[in-house]
Amino acid sequence: MLDTTWIQPPFDIVRAAHAELIVTDLQRAKEFYVHLLGLVVSEERQNVIYLRGYEERLHHSLALRQGPVAMLDHLAFRVASPEHLVLLARFYEQQGCPVRWVQNEEEGMEQALRVQDPCGFIVEFFYFMQPVESLLRRYDLYRGSHIQRIDHFNLHVPDVQSAFDYYKQLGFRCSEYTVTSSPDKQLWAAWLYRKPTIHDVALTNGTGPRLHHLGFWVSEAQDILHTCDRFAAAGQNMAIERGPGRHGVSNAFFLYLRDPDDFRIELYTCDYFTGDPDFEPMRWTVDDPRRGTFWGHIAPVSWFEESSLVKGLDGKPAQLQLASLKERPMTVI
Amino acid sequence: MLDTTWIQPPFDIVRAAHAELIVTDLQRAKEFYVHLLGLVVSEERQNVIYLRGYEERLHHSLALRQGPVAMLDHLAFRVASPEHLVLLARFYEQQGCPVRWVQNEEEGMEQALRVQDPCGFIVEFFYFMQPVESLLRRYDLYRGSHIQRIDHFNLHVPDVQSAFDYYKQLGFRCSEYTVTSSPDKQLWAAWLYRKPTIHDVALTNGTGPRLHHLGFWVSEAQDILHTCDRFAAAGQNMAIERGPGRHGVSNAFFLYLRDPDDFRIELYTCDYFTGDPDFEPMRWTVDDPRRGTFWGHIAPVSWFEESSLVKGLDGKPAQLQLASLKERPMTVI
Amino acid sequence: MLDTTWIQPPFDIVRAAHAELIVTDLQRAKEFYVHLLGLVVSEERQNVIYLRGYEERLHHSLALRQGPVAMLDHLAFRVASPEHLVLLARFYEQQGCPVRWVQNEEEGMEQALRVQDPCGFIVEFFYFMQPVESLLRRYDLYRGSHIQRIDHFNLHVPDVQSAFDYYKQLGFRCSEYTVTSSPDKQLWAAWLYRKPTIHDVALTNGTGPRLHHLGFWVSEAQDILHTCDRFAAAGQNMAIERGPGRHGVSNAFFLYLRDPDDFRIELYTCDYFTGDPDFEPMRWTVDDPRRGTFWGHIAPVSWFEESSLVKGLDGKPAQLQLASLKERPMTVI
Amino acid sequence: MLDTTWIQPPFDIVRAAHAELIVTDLQRAKEFYVHLLGLVVSEERQNVIYLRGYEERLHHSLALRQGPVAMLDHLAFRVASPEHLVLLARFYEQQGCPVRWVQNEEEGMEQALRVQDPCGFIVEFFYFMQPVESLLRRYDLYRGSHIQRIDHFNLHVPDVQSAFDYYKQLGFRCSEYTVTSSPDKQLWAAWLYRKPTIHDVALTNGTGPRLHHLGFWVSEAQDILHTCDRFAAAGQNMAIERGPGRHGVSNAFFLYLRDPDDFRIELYTCDYFTGDPDFEPMRWTVDDPRRGTFWGHIAPVSWFEESSLVKGLDGKPAQLQLASLKERPMTVI
Repeated sequence: MLDTTWIQPPFDIVRAAHAELIVTDLQRAKEFYVHLLGLVVSEERQNVIYLRGYEERLHHSLALRQGPVAMLDHLAFRVASPEHLVLLARFYEQQGCPVRWVQNEEEGMEQALRVQDPCGFIVEFFYFMQPVESLLRRYDLYRGSHIQRIDHFNLHVPDVQSAFDYYKQLGFRCSEYTVTSSPDKQLWAAWLYRKPTIHDVALTNGTGPRLHHLGFWVSEAQDILHTCDRFAAAGQNMAIERGPGRHGVSNAFFLYLRDPDDFRIELYTCDYFTGDPDFEPMRWTVDDPRRGTFWGHIAPVSWFEESSLVKGLDGKPAQLQLASLKERPMTVI
Repeated sequence: MLDTTWIQPPFDIVRAAHAELIVTDLQRAKEFYVHLLGLVVSEERQNVIYLRGYEERLHHSLALRQGPVAMLDHLAFRVASPEHLVLLARFYEQQGCPVRWVQNEEEGMEQALRVQDPCGFIVEFFYFMQPVESLLRRYDLYRGSHIQRIDHFNLHVPDVQSAFDYYKQLGFRCSEYTVTSSPDKQLWAAWLYRKPTIHDVALTNGTGPRLHHLGFWVSEAQDILHTCDRFAAAGQNMAIERGPGRHGVSNAFFLYLRDPDDFRIELYTCDYFTGDPDFEPMRWTVDDPRRGTFWGHIAPVSWFEESSLVKGLDGKPAQLQLASLKERPMTVI
Repeated sequence: MLDTTWIQPPFDIVRAAHAELIVTDLQRAKEFYVHLLGLVVSEERQNVIYLRGYEERLHHSLALRQGPVAMLDHLAFRVASPEHLVLLARFYEQQGCPVRWVQNEEEGMEQALRVQDPCGFIVEFFYFMQPVESLLRRYDLYRGSHIQRIDHFNLHVPDVQSAFDYYKQLGFRCSEYTVTSSPDKQLWAAWLYRKPTIHDVALTNGTGPRLHHLGFWVSEAQDILHTCDRFAAAGQNMAIERGPGRHGVSNAFFLYLRDPDDFRIELYTCDYFTGDPDFEPMRWTVDDPRRGTFWGHIAPVSWFEESSLVKGLDGKPAQLQLASLKERPMTVI
Repeated sequence: MLDTTWIQPPFDIVRAAHAELIVTDLQRAKEFYVHLLGLVVSEERQNVIYLRGYEERLHHSLALRQGPVAMLDHLAFRVASPEHLVLLARFYEQQGCPVRWVQNEEEGMEQALRVQDPCGFIVEFFYFMQPVESLLRRYDLYRGSHIQRIDHFNLHVPDVQSAFDYYKQLGFRCSEYTVTSSPDKQLWAAWLYRKPTIHDVALTNGTGPRLHHLGFWVSEAQDILHTCDRFAAAGQNMAIERGPGRHGVSNAFFLYLRDPDDFRIELYTCDYFTGDPDFEPMRWTVDDPRRGTFWGHIAPVSWFEESSLVKGLDGKPAQLQLASLKERPMTVI
């Protein structure tokens, strides 16, 4: 049995807050994220574009930075107060993780803590980010997919159990998880949250550390159907990798797109509330046909094999380790 | 009992095809129809703008012409073949109605027949209009309310029964009608069609001849909800006169907007099929609370009292006659 | 170039009206069509169930009859007046097709004409069918997929060109068609209509005569998404064969289900108007990735290979002929 | 300026959890809540019915109890751990509020704390409630309005400022508020939350203590439109009091229904995230036409004047105090 006891650490991580992607062609990326998806441009510099959803009140939830190799620069979580950054620095130092304080490295931010976490991802923690106007009620400005806000990070890790144990120490709780169909029921994937929704972070068994996808929230299923129509009409139907469909895990209505650098973006809606103190996680077996797509659709093989590289401390892609578990759901090529 | 027998005349009117409105400020009208509603501009001249819906394959379904007094210039029906224009000219001459052949009076059109009909409206019949590209599948170009096509004309006439008798002679069939609640059950409103939907023309008891509204088809209820959000966000919430709601009559999901010249535009979805040869019209009584809005909402008084003037033969607004029936549904001020 | 000139024959076929399926287990079929799909039961006898959609005003649009072998019993079209049945009988006799008058063979019907058409299908023509109450506004009774009405028949025929030529003689018009990608551009599929929508009948290249699917109209995309949820929740996710998605051809939002006898049912919404006299059909090439699913999704191989048998004159399944064209779209197994 | 500083008390209230209503005809109430709205029956006794939404994992979020006078029995909040109940008892005793420990007073509950709060409402706090199966993914069982979960309580209080100050002490934060248009900008209404959504409790200026409405969450706007259709079709259109529409405050898409005892039920969707530590509340002025209904619709006078009585300590309706502020939005009769 998976131990899903909730540990409350001394620091308080509020939620998944933003990600920075290194893209190889900033204008082509802008075409995808701004013109097709309709994300709001908060600020644009020569080498970087800062984006947010219509609802969001902080400067950015996605940064695109021009670079030579497409990879994740870092993931970022917001904490509940500035002191928690210090407590987190101490936690990571005790884990033997590289820790670095940065200042003004991103537009709209001042101090932040960056660590290389035990899974190999560069993770940023911050309290302050410049507030901006929420465009929630500016329906006259809505374009594209009507993305409201960032929702979660989905990560490929070679050993889900140890990544799960690490996230528990950060105070994450588990909403749903998947085990192998073998008798030892090893942990194959887990959905973990701080804000009381399905997840801020999902961990999936796979060669890693790699970024599987970034999940963004939309308000209604139609936003997802119209996204397919709009991408296809613009001759970008090849960007549609999986969906639209409903996940068994999470019950979300979803769509997965691939950007010009093959970063995978999920549009996601229809969450449920997980904030009750005795919330019991839901268990799935990896071979349950309704787990991935509730309706029984089989995912493409790319969905399980392809993921984005992540930056290491030396600025180059972090070294990869093969997945520890061989089992995986049925796929189509 | 209303006699709803179907008469098939020698000519074949296909459908309600377009309307031309005289507006007092063309740029302000463009703001409403193009920027807010998202109609497609087929052609723009100094004094006139030609518009269409995303699905439409003919040059225009709405023309806006600059002029000193806001009024309807004309309504237009398409006929199934050019010879029917001659037959229609004969029909109107026999009725003693003024008849005029016009050539190239509108962009995209060649010959057309214009008459002043027995109800006092200037009505155009045409066969040929320049084909244009349907943008039905160009979802990447969709803006505003995603209007697909023109659907119907709704007219205020002082004597519905005689207007009904005239439209029957044109080959229109009746899908639904409303009678007074008085024992003599006089005809208070009628929905008439040539294409097998609820209507191409609706007639309502009221001071007339006046144009009550032009109805445009949208594909889904969300298009209507988003229209409200967008108008309100743009500070144009005063343009929303009635709805969103579901009509009892027609079962349509609707919204009524008023343009800067107070012309009333309906966004309309969710029709049913009326093309069966033995189709029986549905009868409503004017005081049925589910007739107007199925959900029981009471319409504003403006909806029953305000309507647009129509051009007469002399180019000035046609003279008005008071409504013959005094009864009307409950309203709110 | 395909000759899509419209021929108006002396008889007037109104629309695709109903189909009768022979099912091997009537109770299991009822579970699918009534309990899961939510079709309305108009009448139930020991060996047959008559069903209709919520909007429909005639006794049935689908009949299920218990029998030893699952196959299509017949397709039925409604005509505009009783005399047209006589004209149609003459037409088929001239074609050398077997013709039979039937009386009271179905509940709710009196006289009908049954023929075995040149494609090998048994086709019924009728004028009168017992009217029943439309449940269009009885939302309190809506269940399942909220099916409104039958929309079309989709047929596998070995020679689309000759089937197309036959349907032209019946007065059908073409809305869209598909040709091979080879230089001779042979006709691979065609969408044909009498009512002014995309189709009453679609013809697809394949071993035939076989029934590919029956298409039913729903009012909104949500009805289709909810159908997937409901089938999956009921453990019937295996019934979902293809979709939800948007067809390039027809622009419809669709879902294909397989019933317990493998009959294929389409739920379909979002049509466009085809009733203009100069309507020009749209041409697709079979290898266009947006033709089948606009969003680029590849159809399962079953969708091109599997179809239902049709009854022949002797009551046994009609003999099959292999498809004349070998080309077909990309599929997944 | 309203002081919206967040105070974190020693106890942790998780969320609005349930309400118990005293209804005068339990079978008629069941017809409304179960047959029309489709709430799930968790348990039914002779004098009380326990209901929940499809997503919910606790025994009930609404209890209906037969009684001689229609009134609110109590509101209930869930706390994060059992010890918090003791801390809350101490808090209320210090406020001089009557406090009572109850045991097994409701099915599915054991110990709970009941207090009469400074506003005059009987409020229950509990930690444990019997878990039940979430029917979130049992789409085959969904009926009615597809209500997912309870969302919030809306209360009429005669002095919003003092009620606001009291709720701040309980650790509630403010998402949005309304002030009078007079120069002194007095607090006219406030939306307060513990879970990171718009609200668990809303306070509105009015004669009180009275229950204005209970808010339930639905997943999509269609659930609300279909509710109107279903109620109207069942001849219950008079139960629709306000909406559907979008609130300016909260940005929610809403519908207000009145049950057979005139209790007001809101169906509500489209929230936003309020969990960030520096979340700034949004201020509205009571005369802003987009505040109540973003689209500009004027609410009925009943919406501002009618509210349900609440039980006092003696089991009779609590005494009422008139609203302290006279200003209110424009209404229609």
